[in-house]
Amino acid sequence: MLNLQQYKLTHMANKPSIPKGTRDFSQQESAERNYIFDTIKSVFRRFGYAQIETPAMENLSTLMGKYGEEGDKLLYRILNSGDAFANVDFDKPLTGQVCEKGLRYDLTVPFARYVVQHQNELSFPFKRFQIQPVWRADRPQKGRYREFYQCDVDVIGSKSQLNELELVQIVDEVFKLLNIKVLLKINNRKVLTGLAEICGAPDKVVDITVAIDKLDKIGLDAVKDEMIAKGLTPEAVSVLEPVLTMQGSAAEKIESMRSLMSASETGLKGLDELEELFGLIEAAGVSCPVEIDLSLARGLNYYTGAIFEVKALDHQIGSICGGGRYDNLTGIFGLPDMSGVGISFGADRIYDVLKALDKFPEGLGQASRLLFANMGSAEVQYLLPVASALRSKGLAVEIYPDSSKLKKQFDYADRKGIPFLSITGENEAKAGQVNIKNLASGEQKSFAKDDIGGIVDFLA
Amino acid sequence: MLNLQQYKLTHMANKPSIPKGTRDFSQQESAERNYIFDTIKSVFRRFGYAQIETPAMENLSTLMGKYGEEGDKLLYRILNSGDAFANVDFDKPLTGQVCEKGLRYDLTVPFARYVVQHQNELSFPFKRFQIQPVWRADRPQKGRYREFYQCDVDVIGSKSQLNELELVQIVDEVFKLLNIKVLLKINNRKVLTGLAEICGAPDKVVDITVAIDKLDKIGLDAVKDEMIAKGLTPEAVSVLEPVLTMQGSAAEKIESMRSLMSASETGLKGLDELEELFGLIEAAGVSCPVEIDLSLARGLNYYTGAIFEVKALDHQIGSICGGGRYDNLTGIFGLPDMSGVGISFGADRIYDVLKALDKFPEGLGQASRLLFANMGSAEVQYLLPVASALRSKGLAVEIYPDSSKLKKQFDYADRKGIPFLSITGENEAKAGQVNIKNLASGEQKSFAKDDIGGIVDFLA
Repeated sequence: MLNLQQYKLTHMANKPSIPKGTRDFSQQESAERNYIFDTIKSVFRRFGYAQIETPAMENLSTLMGKYGEEGDKLLYRILNSGDAFANVDFDKPLTGQVCEKGLRYDLTVPFARYVVQHQNELSFPFKRFQIQPVWRADRPQKGRYREFYQCDVDVIGSKSQLNELELVQIVDEVFKLLNIKVLLKINNRKVLTGLAEICGAPDKVVDITVAIDKLDKIGLDAVKDEMIAKGLTPEAVSVLEPVLTMQGSAAEKIESMRSLMSASETGLKGLDELEELFGLIEAAGVSCPVEIDLSLARGLNYYTGAIFEVKALDHQIGSICGGGRYDNLTGIFGLPDMSGVGISFGADRIYDVLKALDKFPEGLGQASRLLFANMGSAEVQYLLPVASALRSKGLAVEIYPDSSKLKKQFDYADRKGIPFLSITGENEAKAGQVNIKNLASGEQKSFAKDDIGGIVDFLA
Repeated sequence: MLNLQQYKLTHMANKPSIPKGTRDFSQQESAERNYIFDTIKSVFRRFGYAQIETPAMENLSTLMGKYGEEGDKLLYRILNSGDAFANVDFDKPLTGQVCEKGLRYDLTVPFARYVVQHQNELSFPFKRFQIQPVWRADRPQKGRYREFYQCDVDVIGSKSQLNELELVQIVDEVFKLLNIKVLLKINNRKVLTGLAEICGAPDKVVDITVAIDKLDKIGLDAVKDEMIAKGLTPEAVSVLEPVLTMQGSAAEKIESMRSLMSASETGLKGLDELEELFGLIEAAGVSCPVEIDLSLARGLNYYTGAIFEVKALDHQIGSICGGGRYDNLTGIFGLPDMSGVGISFGADRIYDVLKALDKFPEGLGQASRLLFANMGSAEVQYLLPVASALRSKGLAVEIYPDSSKLKKQFDYADRKGIPFLSITGENEAKAGQVNIKNLASGEQKSFAKDDIGGIVDFLA
């Protein structure tokens, strides 16, 4: 007899688990996730973006120093194969000596690396999408995982605002297809730079943006106080006040900023870009609301033009998609002057929105349309060609593998959510018939075994 | 001026690369690989198999000891996050102290782990497929990579030979759809055990199988010599001789082995299984040739029943798909008595076969069907709704983002393999027309801009 300690050890040894922050995806979850990925891909493809894939492991020299000091700490490092510690100098830091490779942290740096490495094989403007997992040694918490998918779409090698428009159209189309109501917010880094310039504080871009972001929550006076606390002069704040209180359409907002921004070349350039983009959006016709939001500050350290962010309107969850224009992504790998723009869809958050709003299409996790009960080997042999014929019509069809009790087979269909059951026994087989029952409605029908078309219609 | 050393350093720093044995997949390669994956998935689904996904990282306790000593060495270990060396005892082996996680080495062990961990949520027989990358720190060589995809399909929780049949049908269907002629070879581990038993050498299963495998190459006499060299008695070899020389159909082979094997209960059980499986194959009707091959010895250490292997007939490359039945896969994680059977498709080899035989469908890498040349912003605004309308019909359509020289835009279409080009300028726009040219045939047509149906037909 085992004592408790032994029991626990045995029990522990027998209970496998996965690393913290990682996930298994069941058949239902995989189907739901595939629905999201497939929808996004289908839209990317219609705009001429094609998929690439890069390896999970990159050289640490590719990854290090690209995500800031915090990011470097969150990289998963892979121990060199063979005896990693064989020729190590134990008086020096070990990590750098025993790890040359790491797991990809995002899809942006591998994309930049890819473009530089393969520049001679690519046609520019290069339009690519990439949907792959990334890994971060972050502290796991609700909605934050150590392995998660990113869905990135980028075009590199063109400065045209048509690219920005295309991304706006892609956002619109993806969420229309997913049946999620969204608001698309657009900002422009050059406009933010302009705002900081006209109040004589070109180094205060982030402070200004953060303060503007609080307007709804804390009100105008508190925002002004905060700006002054951050070191802006009262004059600077009064210069900004019209921006804080401006109302109206995108065109009106651009217009009122234009007079304000006349002293900033960069700011005016940013307004030109915004104006062109909104003109294109109007010409193309986009169904989701699109608005200018000067508080959008994502990726401020590398975005140089448009900045995008998408919010779900019917479910509070933060940004579910975002991106922007960068003018020097590939510079880090020695290929300067390549302007690009891209966005990334947050699959996990989109998943949460669809779950919360109950908007996944019905029957997504349904593995099979029809289960043939197994009434014995003669009946199975009789049904095999019928099953094959149905499969060749593209239907998912199973024959229960064992001639178990009917109750057990029925439970199997029920638990798997298979909507049709065929109980075709000796008598039906003798008569050349196939019996099929719609388990939801109870409707039952007999078909001649060659009447594949009739069966297909009944299963539809 | 840089000296050579400095030049090299700068140059090196600027030329990014990926780890040895890993690969980038271009848009063309991704499209070709997706064609393979999508074909395989579509067949899996029609037989009621549904996808699951498991994390790339597994606990090393899950992976270690499952692939033999050699396999353990090939596991990629992930350095613990935080300061991995903080509390390490440097007098003890370090690897085990600084790494708790590893990259998945195959899909079989994670599948077993998944089934045990989630056993209460699953309906058995549990039919799943899984298509994900695996990682092995193997020496890279032609056709062998450190990151590669496996495509596994398994059913667990049923001993019925109908499952084996289903896998045979899946193999048949996949390669029919991929247009690859294959030979499916089947063996049975119990028959091999039986053979070893009847020649009084139950521990010599592998030696016997390896010797039989050489029959075609070295001839009967040499095979007999080899068996004797491996320690079989001349009497044992003469018992085996009828097996070596047997001819005929599967049924005939089974029949002639049955008399030979009457002393081995296990062997007879294996023959029963083979007979039942071949009977089912005949009843179902399978189009590829299927034969018994007693030299099939893959996975001898864990397969307990059927063993499968698929060879391409028109291209020599080794096995492109294989698998078998295992009776105790989940036993390692504490769930005994779960019999299962599965096969794995080798995506990289299938890719090589399709390339070598030039059997990828045409136009696979085609990102877009139509490029609208950019003749200026007024023309682009005119074309935007046309592009949207075509995309809503599911067509991939691009507008060149910059109003560059026509030659440059044309080259872009050419290099991307876009088959149709629209040069719609001021005059066409004024007339409400859209001009489209088939770049291969030279045929050119004008359409009213609302005639989306006409354009779709022309692009088909």
